[in-house]
Amino acid sequence: MATAAEAEAMRHAVALAAHGLGHTSPNPVVGCVILDAHGRTVGEGWHQRAGGPHAEVHALRAAGERARGGTALVTLEPCNHTGRTGPCAQALIDAGVARVRYAVADPTAEARGGAATLAAAGIDVAAGPLTDEAEAVNEAWLTSMRRGRPFVLWKYAATLDGRSAAADGTSRWITSAASRADVHRLRAEADAVVVGSGTLRADDPHLAVRDRDGATQPLRVVVDTRATITPGARVLDDAAPTLIAVAEDADTGHLPGVETVRLPRSADAEGLDIGALLTALHHRGVRSVLLEGGPTLAGAFLAAGAVDKVVGYLAPVLLGAGPAALADAGITTIAQALRLEAADVTRLGPDLRVTAVPAATLAEEN
Amino acid sequence: MATAAEAEAMRHAVALAAHGLGHTSPNPVVGCVILDAHGRTVGEGWHQRAGGPHAEVHALRAAGERARGGTALVTLEPCNHTGRTGPCAQALIDAGVARVRYAVADPTAEARGGAATLAAAGIDVAAGPLTDEAEAVNEAWLTSMRRGRPFVLWKYAATLDGRSAAADGTSRWITSAASRADVHRLRAEADAVVVGSGTLRADDPHLAVRDRDGATQPLRVVVDTRATITPGARVLDDAAPTLIAVAEDADTGHLPGVETVRLPRSADAEGLDIGALLTALHHRGVRSVLLEGGPTLAGAFLAAGAVDKVVGYLAPVLLGAGPAALADAGITTIAQALRLEAADVTRLGPDLRVTAVPAATLAEEN
Repeated sequence: MATAAEAEAMRHAVALAAHGLGHTSPNPVVGCVILDAHGRTVGEGWHQRAGGPHAEVHALRAAGERARGGTALVTLEPCNHTGRTGPCAQALIDAGVARVRYAVADPTAEARGGAATLAAAGIDVAAGPLTDEAEAVNEAWLTSMRRGRPFVLWKYAATLDGRSAAADGTSRWITSAASRADVHRLRAEADAVVVGSGTLRADDPHLAVRDRDGATQPLRVVVDTRATITPGARVLDDAAPTLIAVAEDADTGHLPGVETVRLPRSADAEGLDIGALLTALHHRGVRSVLLEGGPTLAGAFLAAGAVDKVVGYLAPVLLGAGPAALADAGITTIAQALRLEAADVTRLGPDLRVTAVPAATLAEEN
Repeated sequence: MATAAEAEAMRHAVALAAHGLGHTSPNPVVGCVILDAHGRTVGEGWHQRAGGPHAEVHALRAAGERARGGTALVTLEPCNHTGRTGPCAQALIDAGVARVRYAVADPTAEARGGAATLAAAGIDVAAGPLTDEAEAVNEAWLTSMRRGRPFVLWKYAATLDGRSAAADGTSRWITSAASRADVHRLRAEADAVVVGSGTLRADDPHLAVRDRDGATQPLRVVVDTRATITPGARVLDDAAPTLIAVAEDADTGHLPGVETVRLPRSADAEGLDIGALLTALHHRGVRSVLLEGGPTLAGAFLAAGAVDKVVGYLAPVLLGAGPAALADAGITTIAQALRLEAADVTRLGPDLRVTAVPAATLAEEN
């Protein structure tokens, strides 16, 4: 059992971990709080970037000798391996910590075992508290470890009648400034932002993060089967790295200096194989993908079972005509409908933000 | 100024008024609470049905002599005219009430003037408190009086991507049992339920109110320009009255005994003139209409500026194909988009119910 002070410290550790979102890939986000033998907070830290010190190391440095006989609250099981930094389990032992609580067990083969190492050294170690909160802050990384591919969040913006643009293609602006700012937050937290060639042609999007101090720019990915992108596309500027995913037989001669990845086509040969795309991104260290559409690519991801979370920005607007926010996802009758669970509904200015998770995913995890 | 006890009594009067929803047309809903000279509640009542006693009469009867020197809280300005019942202003004077507070002024030419009559008799009379709450409970009737046509609430059910059915037309069930029960509440509160012939052909709906004790069945209205309805349609049973609106040149020979109304066609001649339909319903005493679609008829109502409120039941479901919840509303570019204000968002089981009001309506009223 954790004490009330420990639960409070773990809650703070989760908040600290969240500071790392968007900066730590391919690593998880982790937060750590050290309490001294009297239960006073004497150190805190979070994993700030891959290659930098782990959360425990930051917190132990701050605590110094006051860690001796104290308690460490860590959002993820302390690692047991020497990567770019030494094992955290050993650092906690060396610091003389008497007690360790970690909210979530490490699911990876190379890092797990930290709890056992700590116990073998005579430290009082146990899982919890606040497992759910710590799972949530590390949702993207944990999902990517469990599935062996990046966590995929599909974001869309639509009217109450499900349109993403008017009949003539105009769409600026359906959603409010508050919703658009929230999308920049999602981009800043993602390792990669993915769009299809239709969106590229319609909107010439830039896809970089704006107006967020210290944000790590995500990798911009365009799924462009036939390599139709032109060298002047805004997404090809130097504001962030960009990767163009094309078919194995695509002609990329007009794109010198542009990074491309060649992938097999999907079964219907209309697009690329979504699984192959995600594998390629995973190998690059991408742990979380923000899928920004358009409707065709979103349909392909959904049909492939490759969407872990949906965030819809619904504007209180009616159009009655214009492109739908979602195109063919391989569903022809109501029994095949993709059922979600609405996890959160928040008002953003005049709009609603609906966050939902596929019901199948929930069933799988329970 | 109203006292705290008076505000509380008015809040109760608004709740009493709500009991009349769906039963009082063409009259408003009204609630009344009588406090004696010491501020104790000694009588309450509401207008239960057209032709029956007004709220004030019910409450005064309950209060008897205890009303003398007391205060009447009424949600609507007491009427000044003799209709099927005597004027309420005179009844309050005769009962010896010393003070009257009414939440909303009567907007009708024949009934207004009650406050002046009370003041002339030496009664302390003033408007308020709780004007907004009393406006809300009488929204349909007040709107119909101000606009000279029934209040129109458009209700739709859709997936998060705006579909009302799957690609093969199946739609049972997109929304949950909780949402469907809520629709029966809306029907029970409406004087008329309106659908188009497309919905009739696709769903053969019944449109009567189920599972609500004591509900007054609404008039079922089918907008069926070319009189395509067949005599076996479920909507033609005797569970509730039914009216078929057809074009002036429609052949209704196959519908003996079915009540029809002949109306001019719309400007594009595809459907009926929505304004003429609403005028015909208004003349029948219909003060509130629940428009249940489908997408084509909803588009026509929206294009005619004849929707006062929108209630959308959004299921956390994705389809990616299938008919849209809303068809052509005459909007071709984003600048013409119909902008609403989301007045309320409520979870109903797994679904979201979004209640919204056209922004133009709000601007007009402020």
